[in-house]
Amino acid sequence: MTTVRPIRESDRDAWLTLWHGYNAFYRNDPTEAVTRAAFRRLCEGTDGFFGLVAEDGAGGLVGLTHAVFHPATWTTGTYCYLEDLFVSRGERGSGAGRLLIEGVYAEADRRGADRVYWHTQQYNAQARSLYDSVAHATSFVVYKR
Amino acid sequence: MTTVRPIRESDRDAWLTLWHGYNAFYRNDPTEAVTRAAFRRLCEGTDGFFGLVAEDGAGGLVGLTHAVFHPATWTTGTYCYLEDLFVSRGERGSGAGRLLIEGVYAEADRRGADRVYWHTQQYNAQARSLYDSVAHATSFVVYKR
Amino acid sequence: MTTVRPIRESDRDAWLTLWHGYNAFYRNDPTEAVTRAAFRRLCEGTDGFFGLVAEDGAGGLVGLTHAVFHPATWTTGTYCYLEDLFVSRGERGSGAGRLLIEGVYAEADRRGADRVYWHTQQYNAQARSLYDSVAHATSFVVYKR
Amino acid sequence: MTTVRPIRESDRDAWLTLWHGYNAFYRNDPTEAVTRAAFRRLCEGTDGFFGLVAEDGAGGLVGLTHAVFHPATWTTGTYCYLEDLFVSRGERGSGAGRLLIEGVYAEADRRGADRVYWHTQQYNAQARSLYDSVAHATSFVVYKR
Repeated sequence: MTTVRPIRESDRDAWLTLWHGYNAFYRNDPTEAVTRAAFRRLCEGTDGFFGLVAEDGAGGLVGLTHAVFHPATWTTGTYCYLEDLFVSRGERGSGAGRLLIEGVYAEADRRGADRVYWHTQQYNAQARSLYDSVAHATSFVVYKR
Repeated sequence: MTTVRPIRESDRDAWLTLWHGYNAFYRNDPTEAVTRAAFRRLCEGTDGFFGLVAEDGAGGLVGLTHAVFHPATWTTGTYCYLEDLFVSRGERGSGAGRLLIEGVYAEADRRGADRVYWHTQQYNAQARSLYDSVAHATSFVVYKR
Repeated sequence: MTTVRPIRESDRDAWLTLWHGYNAFYRNDPTEAVTRAAFRRLCEGTDGFFGLVAEDGAGGLVGLTHAVFHPATWTTGTYCYLEDLFVSRGERGSGAGRLLIEGVYAEADRRGADRVYWHTQQYNAQARSLYDSVAHATSFVVYKR
Repeated sequence: MTTVRPIRESDRDAWLTLWHGYNAFYRNDPTEAVTRAAFRRLCEGTDGFFGLVAEDGAGGLVGLTHAVFHPATWTTGTYCYLEDLFVSRGERGSGAGRLLIEGVYAEADRRGADRVYWHTQQYNAQARSLYDSVAHATSFVVYKR
């Protein structure tokens, strides 16, 4: 059975494998410094970072999600930007993705966040199929310098 | 001639008019507390807030933009989320919107931000026409709980 | 002040003006028989039809909405298809459109409908700006033989 | 060779398998009562329901489609809402989907329906590839409360 829990220091090696798989999906190539800083802040919960991993019945890590809580002009509270989500290929459809998102929702509720949002490629059918069942597609698209 | 400069305390009344016009556009109805907290943080530059106004030749305010600099997992630096942009109806097409975005770019460069990004409604033709000339539409859409 | 109430027989002339304006918007040209049947069923509430009009302070009609309640395979109850919505040009932005939608929501709740849904052109910025504030854009597009 | 015929009472078990596969695709979890009511109305043709199954050469069911005929304001006749369509994974590309849609078209013609329409996720490339060859994508998107 898949369960979800906060990332901890001892997850480093298993997390790295997932993190590299995630980055490969987006053809992103983070520097060592970026990877180290991300993991450290996720473990410590600094800079608004919050991270969860999904664990299978045998204790292996099969997914991760990272969120960043940040201020916003439309609230005196906080927004939760669900920045990263990844489930290893063999585990897709196992429910791990949904559990990870629900874990972020629970933390966002705990902190009283006014919004949980994320970005996804409009053509990513597999991901959107899940997202459509736990959230709402909006009319908004993302622009980038 | 339109010019752009940081928001300051003495802009309060003129800024409020623009802020309410901006919120009306999105049919958003911020509380007094949200409005006050937004203005204060924009003037003080706290919580990662950064705000600019566009001034016409006579010193009247014709536009505003607010950005929030926040940490992100893909960088040891910062991302710049251009959260709000508004130009009063009569001034659209005057170049104020472009100047405001370029002002945010300049500040993002000064702080070494790795990214400047924003959200816009896919059907907002007037806004996208400007954005396409100063930035890139991405394939990403926004999901929201 | 704009108010909303069910369509009634005595609205015929004013309703016709709105109905023709609405059809002109979609370049639809209903036959007399279709128009008569629509009005009759809206007044009688037969065939699952439900209709509301928006009235201004002087008792003039400024908007209409028609919904059809129909069975669906995913429910033992009913779905509410909000088929038509129109506000006369001069009254747009007056809040009439929102009141009409909320009136349909109230009736859908009264009947225990499992869903209220409608279709809109993806490029209809004015309409979507309203819809985004009272409902959710979905990932679904409409196909037609 | 794949053929198409109306759903009948003796299809119950094979239909259930397809129905559950279809619902799993949309991460929908219908109650027993909803499933029973859907099957009954499809067999009886009540509530405007109409259902077809696709049968392979050996008599096994490989696909289903359900339509709901409902009144609409733009017609004195009926609209045909093609609500559900599913082909089991191994049979995709076999032509079963097209046969099912054509079977619905034939029934819609028999009843003089003015329109056959359906909804699909904009990112469902496999489905849209078929739909584009037998129907028209419209400019309409679906909003939902």
